[in-house]
Amino acid sequence: MHYELYYWTGIQGRGEFVRLALEDAGAGYRDVAREQGDAAMQPFLDGAHAGARPFAPPFLKAGRLVIAQVANILHYLGPPLGLVPDSESRRLQALQLQLTIADLVAEVHDSHHPIASGLYYEDQKAEALRRAEDLRKQRLPKFLGYFEQVLDQGGGRHVLREHSYVDLSLFQLMSGLDCAFPQAMKKLSPKLPRLRALQQRVCERPAIAAYLASPRRLPFNENGIFRHYPELDG
Amino acid sequence: MHYELYYWTGIQGRGEFVRLALEDAGAGYRDVAREQGDAAMQPFLDGAHAGARPFAPPFLKAGRLVIAQVANILHYLGPPLGLVPDSESRRLQALQLQLTIADLVAEVHDSHHPIASGLYYEDQKAEALRRAEDLRKQRLPKFLGYFEQVLDQGGGRHVLREHSYVDLSLFQLMSGLDCAFPQAMKKLSPKLPRLRALQQRVCERPAIAAYLASPRRLPFNENGIFRHYPELDG
Repeated sequence: MHYELYYWTGIQGRGEFVRLALEDAGAGYRDVAREQGDAAMQPFLDGAHAGARPFAPPFLKAGRLVIAQVANILHYLGPPLGLVPDSESRRLQALQLQLTIADLVAEVHDSHHPIASGLYYEDQKAEALRRAEDLRKQRLPKFLGYFEQVLDQGGGRHVLREHSYVDLSLFQLMSGLDCAFPQAMKKLSPKLPRLRALQQRVCERPAIAAYLASPRRLPFNENGIFRHYPELDG
Repeated sequence: MHYELYYWTGIQGRGEFVRLALEDAGAGYRDVAREQGDAAMQPFLDGAHAGARPFAPPFLKAGRLVIAQVANILHYLGPPLGLVPDSESRRLQALQLQLTIADLVAEVHDSHHPIASGLYYEDQKAEALRRAEDLRKQRLPKFLGYFEQVLDQGGGRHVLREHSYVDLSLFQLMSGLDCAFPQAMKKLSPKLPRLRALQQRVCERPAIAAYLASPRRLPFNENGIFRHYPELDG
């Protein structure tokens, strides 16, 4: 199967979780908006294509299927890409963990946009200072502590006891948080040895290392989800 | 299969989306925390049970499986309860729609808790006024307009062309929004005829009507997700 990924150009954003899975598996895919511009996504968002209508990017075209929502896309891609264990119970566990990652990603987004995604950061900076403090002090320790425990219970090397798209997403999550909140993450690190080791192992996987060194991997920037605003890092 | 649902007592909350599916299908289930208290959930959250460890309620026990995250639970329950079409593509579409509902539910929560879920509403009321205004003016029209269009494209009666758990969740979403934002929803209603008709059809389903009239259906209240604070309704 040759896949078509649709996501906003210029940022890693939520599309990156899908991109990492495709790259790790060596899947054939086109990054359509990067080739044709963001306007290529509009007919899908307008419902002009057959298949499930996406509410927002990213979405994946696989043959006639159109699939939106990161966790849903990864749930679909897991089996053909060999990125999820075979059993139904493990697939459900993978989806559950991915949805919990998605919850934290949404909270990270809201740490710089706590009032409205349509407003500039500068127009909600006072609120962002308050929300980011709660993220650093309450939410990051809670979420990352949870993933650390799940890793530990699974034997320490893989969150699902074998390599999966969830490991790739945890790598992306940790890398994004390191970029956005370097001080806070440095403080948390001693409590997250397994997550840190997992992050390192993922970035050493040959296909991931090659991808990260390629021009396809955009740097984190101040238009994406993981933004480094020093004042939000405490 | 006899199911065990675990969710906070005293509120509808996210657990209600699962409860409506179980009730509509006439499934045998226990609402464990309501019988035994919220403490019954702790061993699962502490990782003391086998099976996937939940980050937060709700979670469902089905035999040996433990499944968390509302959309994941409904994805699992859909086939055995007859609440999702058979084909893989329609199951993916259902999951995608449910995840989009979940995104809006999170935004509704944050409209009264834009800074921190651990703080009282009164301690983030100024920020809530700003965020709720954006929700009413930008986000509700966008999300609900999307669901209205998907309904329209699916023939108008069901969001997936046949009855599914997504219809039940859209009923819950609309009912919750009516409670929390009665003025805003009254203004939006003329643009949402299909969603309104769907909401009405769902609440007339015999099993749902019986459930809504039972003591098992708690009223919306100011501890849940859908809270009526008149000042947030504009």
